[in-house]
Amino acid sequence: MLPIGATIGIVGGGQLGRMLGLAALDLGFRVHVFAPPDGDNVAFAIAHDTVAAPYEDAAAMAGFAAGVDVLTYEFENVPVGALEGIATAIRPAPAALLKAQDRLVEKAFLAQCGLPVGPHLPVASVADLDAARAQIPDGFLKARRLGYDGKGQARITPETDSEAAFAAIGGAPAILEERIPFVAETSLILARGADGASRAYAMTRNTHEAGILRRTDFPSPIDAALATTAERWVADLCEALDYVGVIGVEFFVTGDPAQPLIANEMAPRVHNTGHWTMDGAATCQFENHIRAIAGWPLGSTQRTADITMVNLIGDDIDELPAHLQNPAALPHVYGKRETRAGRKMGHVNFIASPVDFD
Amino acid sequence: MLPIGATIGIVGGGQLGRMLGLAALDLGFRVHVFAPPDGDNVAFAIAHDTVAAPYEDAAAMAGFAAGVDVLTYEFENVPVGALEGIATAIRPAPAALLKAQDRLVEKAFLAQCGLPVGPHLPVASVADLDAARAQIPDGFLKARRLGYDGKGQARITPETDSEAAFAAIGGAPAILEERIPFVAETSLILARGADGASRAYAMTRNTHEAGILRRTDFPSPIDAALATTAERWVADLCEALDYVGVIGVEFFVTGDPAQPLIANEMAPRVHNTGHWTMDGAATCQFENHIRAIAGWPLGSTQRTADITMVNLIGDDIDELPAHLQNPAALPHVYGKRETRAGRKMGHVNFIASPVDFD
Repeated sequence: MLPIGATIGIVGGGQLGRMLGLAALDLGFRVHVFAPPDGDNVAFAIAHDTVAAPYEDAAAMAGFAAGVDVLTYEFENVPVGALEGIATAIRPAPAALLKAQDRLVEKAFLAQCGLPVGPHLPVASVADLDAARAQIPDGFLKARRLGYDGKGQARITPETDSEAAFAAIGGAPAILEERIPFVAETSLILARGADGASRAYAMTRNTHEAGILRRTDFPSPIDAALATTAERWVADLCEALDYVGVIGVEFFVTGDPAQPLIANEMAPRVHNTGHWTMDGAATCQFENHIRAIAGWPLGSTQRTADITMVNLIGDDIDELPAHLQNPAALPHVYGKRETRAGRKMGHVNFIASPVDFD
Repeated sequence: MLPIGATIGIVGGGQLGRMLGLAALDLGFRVHVFAPPDGDNVAFAIAHDTVAAPYEDAAAMAGFAAGVDVLTYEFENVPVGALEGIATAIRPAPAALLKAQDRLVEKAFLAQCGLPVGPHLPVASVADLDAARAQIPDGFLKARRLGYDGKGQARITPETDSEAAFAAIGGAPAILEERIPFVAETSLILARGADGASRAYAMTRNTHEAGILRRTDFPSPIDAALATTAERWVADLCEALDYVGVIGVEFFVTGDPAQPLIANEMAPRVHNTGHWTMDGAATCQFENHIRAIAGWPLGSTQRTADITMVNLIGDDIDELPAHLQNPAALPHVYGKRETRAGRKMGHVNFIASPVDFD
């Protein structure tokens, strides 16, 4: 167990780093944050010390790591090269980053851990894409690396021009994923401690718009037995990586009894679909991530209330005063300087009613 | 409504200021903290800017106030003189400090607002004390100013030596309070918004040891009708002060149906007996204090869980690892550098089971 007063190092300066930092402070830790100088680094505002340098700056990263007792990240696209040779404990271990940074590697890993994944094919050229479309006529072309919130993706239908689609994602190495005609989306947020014990949160119904999470709510779109299966899958996946911290795995709910869930992607970090836990679970995902990487026992993940989480994206932040007319609205505001379309500015958890403990 | 990004100024650098600051950050505010340079100012660690100066330094206070959008305090003994002439909004208004800083004034004010108070007499000398003991043979001699956590108090029984007792509290102006043979202690934590709307939290059973709060738990030692009466009293008291923010009023539960509650003291700030709200109420006392002083609507004070709050005092902090073996233990650690007997180092909320909304 890291002692009270130890220093947590967070790589990444966004809202996830900020909420991780706030949780760490409430546990009595010190917080250092590393982030690129060109970002709106809202996590800097809650840190005792900060380093502003590109992720690729291995010397800056090494200096940062030397000043902390454990290093974690809020962002799965941290270059693994910059973390090599660092003596400080890195949790989750960079092996998880290697799996999550490349969609093709990720799909293979998910499948290897027993999670069902949808049909997909690698695409390195327009010719590859033409060939792949013979097998997968209806799908999404996605860059293998550096995509998030729907970026680096192109819709593929029989009418799409291959050349334009490949150009739209920057001509980068990609995969063509078959479109899954889902009835709902869900995710499994699981915390795994340094001792290997894990605790899962209740699975929400997730709603995306334009590739960005819009809201999560309850009831879950899947039954308890299926949730237990998903929890087993993700626990196995974590065991394969000797994972320490919180992980999020997104699933499509197919409505097909033969294959009711298909894993979409994994994020080796706290996850937007777990923000409801700040007001609806005994211990929130941010605190459990910090507890895990500090070698502390995990707190209960028990759901305590019916919660609807609504993201405030771009100008949505201007609706905050209206939301606050509802005393059940519990806001979390990230403190970003500039409102931009598609930018996550905050979220509101609407608490409805408490739920019985098991 | 103060806009997101506005600056909250907190006077006082202890754990209450720290938890107020963390709540303000999560709402998207900036936080400045003013505290004396000789304290273990754990609130400094979460602030964007700090001023270290004695409370009496009016120039430093004026400079601090000029840099914030609203000024509040975590500590009721801030000298009111240092706040005079400040143009920045001060919430709660210093009138509340004037009532709370002098036990004799406080008792008169509580009574004026309709709250039952116990028998008490002013004592300015040993001769006064001798005279008062004729009417109140069994009680506590308490300095009128600057007492907290049982400091500045002396027990008075028929055997006590008046001169020694008066010397023990420093020979300062005092009151002799009759000992109330209570069956339990409780408190009413109420938030009042800038619009005059108020919301009360559920009343806990409070247990003190050696003058320091040890724990709060449920069920409340009083029934719902009596809690409603207490809420009305405190709402009236707040209206008399045009109070904005969270207030705590402590009561003795007498077991006497004719006079079931006797008000002990008021604290014009967030209160230790409200720490359970961090994990057991929809909106915690710290967030509601910040919402109130920022002119935001209050959040629901609805209790969501059965919670036992245990203070970690002095060496109790060493028991934290043992507490954490229980996944229902939700710790809040203040980050104090030095452990000292009687010093509040943190608290743990133990979550038992959720409670139905009304």
